[in-house]
Amino acid sequence: MLVTLLKSTPDPEKTVAMAARLCYSDSTIAELEKKVAGVSNEKFLGKILKMGHLSVLEHAGFTFGVEGISRATSHQLVRHRLASYSQQSQRYVTAETPEYVVPPSIEKDAGKKKRFERAVKSAYRLYKELIDAGVPAEDSRYLLPNAAATKIIVTMNARELIHFFRLRCCERAQWEIRDMATRMLALAKKEAPYIFRDSGPACVSGGCSEGEMTCGKPKEIRQRFRNL
Amino acid sequence: MLVTLLKSTPDPEKTVAMAARLCYSDSTIAELEKKVAGVSNEKFLGKILKMGHLSVLEHAGFTFGVEGISRATSHQLVRHRLASYSQQSQRYVTAETPEYVVPPSIEKDAGKKKRFERAVKSAYRLYKELIDAGVPAEDSRYLLPNAAATKIIVTMNARELIHFFRLRCCERAQWEIRDMATRMLALAKKEAPYIFRDSGPACVSGGCSEGEMTCGKPKEIRQRFRNL
Amino acid sequence: MLVTLLKSTPDPEKTVAMAARLCYSDSTIAELEKKVAGVSNEKFLGKILKMGHLSVLEHAGFTFGVEGISRATSHQLVRHRLASYSQQSQRYVTAETPEYVVPPSIEKDAGKKKRFERAVKSAYRLYKELIDAGVPAEDSRYLLPNAAATKIIVTMNARELIHFFRLRCCERAQWEIRDMATRMLALAKKEAPYIFRDSGPACVSGGCSEGEMTCGKPKEIRQRFRNL
Amino acid sequence: MLVTLLKSTPDPEKTVAMAARLCYSDSTIAELEKKVAGVSNEKFLGKILKMGHLSVLEHAGFTFGVEGISRATSHQLVRHRLASYSQQSQRYVTAETPEYVVPPSIEKDAGKKKRFERAVKSAYRLYKELIDAGVPAEDSRYLLPNAAATKIIVTMNARELIHFFRLRCCERAQWEIRDMATRMLALAKKEAPYIFRDSGPACVSGGCSEGEMTCGKPKEIRQRFRNL
Repeated sequence: MLVTLLKSTPDPEKTVAMAARLCYSDSTIAELEKKVAGVSNEKFLGKILKMGHLSVLEHAGFTFGVEGISRATSHQLVRHRLASYSQQSQRYVTAETPEYVVPPSIEKDAGKKKRFERAVKSAYRLYKELIDAGVPAEDSRYLLPNAAATKIIVTMNARELIHFFRLRCCERAQWEIRDMATRMLALAKKEAPYIFRDSGPACVSGGCSEGEMTCGKPKEIRQRFRNL
Repeated sequence: MLVTLLKSTPDPEKTVAMAARLCYSDSTIAELEKKVAGVSNEKFLGKILKMGHLSVLEHAGFTFGVEGISRATSHQLVRHRLASYSQQSQRYVTAETPEYVVPPSIEKDAGKKKRFERAVKSAYRLYKELIDAGVPAEDSRYLLPNAAATKIIVTMNARELIHFFRLRCCERAQWEIRDMATRMLALAKKEAPYIFRDSGPACVSGGCSEGEMTCGKPKEIRQRFRNL
Repeated sequence: MLVTLLKSTPDPEKTVAMAARLCYSDSTIAELEKKVAGVSNEKFLGKILKMGHLSVLEHAGFTFGVEGISRATSHQLVRHRLASYSQQSQRYVTAETPEYVVPPSIEKDAGKKKRFERAVKSAYRLYKELIDAGVPAEDSRYLLPNAAATKIIVTMNARELIHFFRLRCCERAQWEIRDMATRMLALAKKEAPYIFRDSGPACVSGGCSEGEMTCGKPKEIRQRFRNL
Repeated sequence: MLVTLLKSTPDPEKTVAMAARLCYSDSTIAELEKKVAGVSNEKFLGKILKMGHLSVLEHAGFTFGVEGISRATSHQLVRHRLASYSQQSQRYVTAETPEYVVPPSIEKDAGKKKRFERAVKSAYRLYKELIDAGVPAEDSRYLLPNAAATKIIVTMNARELIHFFRLRCCERAQWEIRDMATRMLALAKKEAPYIFRDSGPACVSGGCSEGEMTCGKPKEIRQRFRNL
């Protein structure tokens, strides 16, 4: 899996701080721009987030490139509707060589891995044969497994990212989307350390949200995300 | 594929007509309710749609049950973000028996069909074996093909439905989602014949939207959707 | 202020329960429809809400008629973006007689009320004179006060309503939108008592969300909303 | 009115071009980044827009500062739901001096203008008096007119902007929001000339969308927006 931060709103934290100040101030926007420039907005952003004044986070956008995730995971990802996606099409792009994801629970067992890979490769082979025999790629791909790798460009704003990380960095999420979300968080945090300081699953900033389904190790998780 | 209309806003066309009238009238809502009751709103709704006053269509919601579509198609479907989805989970529900979709381009050729089905069934078999050997269902399912059948409940409002039908009833859409969208349109049209009268691909109400990629048979298509 | 529930998804709680069951079951939708029919879904819905499985609530839609709120309040209302609105237009509808809202803090003081009403009526008078002198209504209305009454039809789904009530039923919200939201909640609760059982400001179902800005009377508030 | 472009996605057109190419290519994202760098993407973007492949435009975000528009206009603006807003609050910010917008239809007539301004100033005066007498700002502001000036920070992506310009740059829109939208378009066009080349009301890129309500001068309008 390769996750990169392709673009983000320049000065995301100053932009957010300026928008938050506008709501409660009679200064002009030019004055507010000066006010947020050249100072750390750490304390102010901390206050905003604590107050739950989350709408101002929407002015900071982040565009990620994600490659080598499975279609199982992209199907989960695109369920997040407050985001923009451009995904490599299985209708228009033929998979010339098998690219796929092996789950760790299978990877770790040589025998299972062998059978898994043989099955996946055999599916890709028949897929290609059907295409060569005149079946459209859009139909041949019905054979391709959930493991098939895909590429997607994703844009989300900081508010939606925080929500996304809350759900998908949690131990209850599946390992692959959790891995992807955690990489996204690490990249976003570099750009906007105060906005994402307490970001991660619910337990990073408060109590566990999973009730009886808790992973039972919030302390360890909290530590991991704080140090990300 | 089984598509049913599970629920819809009662009196969708009166609701839409009342909302449209409210914008331009100083009557009370109770007066408007009387005004739209017991009359055909055909002419008025036609005028609203022609004027492009589409926001009023959002007050009419439709909830569909869809069963037996492939995961290839559900992945396309959930890209429509102005909608609500509840989908059978491959993480939490184990597929006890192979249920899958065979594309017509494969179905029609006995030899291809045989190879396709053998491959799909073999994937399901290994999937079950891995589960029995302790691999979680959420990981074993990486083997399952795009052809795997799924169930989903979908809620969209009439404005989004019209947009959805425009894209997905078009000959350029893949056959499976087109089949699904066309069944949805037929069901919605029974509930709200005037709202959806000219619904379908772009060519039903105007010119083809597909430029060089046109299917070249707008007349035939228009006829088909008008008679739906 | 007059708030009415104009329409809602028939059997909203059964619809939600069915959608929730679909995610974790391999039954057909017809089987699930039977399962949720004729039984109380109280316990099941309570569990779903507690688990935070909120997306299923989106299948239940509610359409309200709201009359006699101020434009100050409608401007707040339409900031909620996951909703559909049809509002009486000040561009196309001329206000023949002054209709306006007097805030309680002004209403309670006879002197203030008199000056307030005189000013508002005088604004309406000049508004009409300018219209009679050929100024378009869309421009004359620049004189009309925030107090000016408006009518609006609002559709939200149950998930968004719960979020809306959380913010707008809170003592921190302004009195007018709080009054409106509380009336909406009372009406929604009649249709779907289990979905909205713990609905209201944050303190009804958990702790206060307002930090230092707390109203300090969560117990009283909780009681009020539980009995709504 | 003061409209400024505060932030935008760096290299918006390369970002959009890269996202569009990803859908139809098996190149890596790094390869696509190279492909779109250092070349004009004019022709490619023109093709994408003509094909209606609009979702890729969502990866380019634009944040505007808007000052000195009326609350009449901000109420129209925030009806666009696929956008993010931070607006100066009338609840928390007291208007120390009258700031307001005079419609041109009133401005041009000295007598009307005088009466308009007298009325507006008188409303602001009573507003201040009530505040001084202990009425909360959030209630005193019920007196303030639609003409009252406001400030707002707006973020929209390029797809939504094109839709917004189509509606709000049209002669059928009110003069104030049309002025605002046209300034936004001029600023966005400087950043992304090919994305917004044919942007403006419907008549700029095709036929008039307003039917009988047409302004009747599409040629002149088209010229104006092409030269913006």
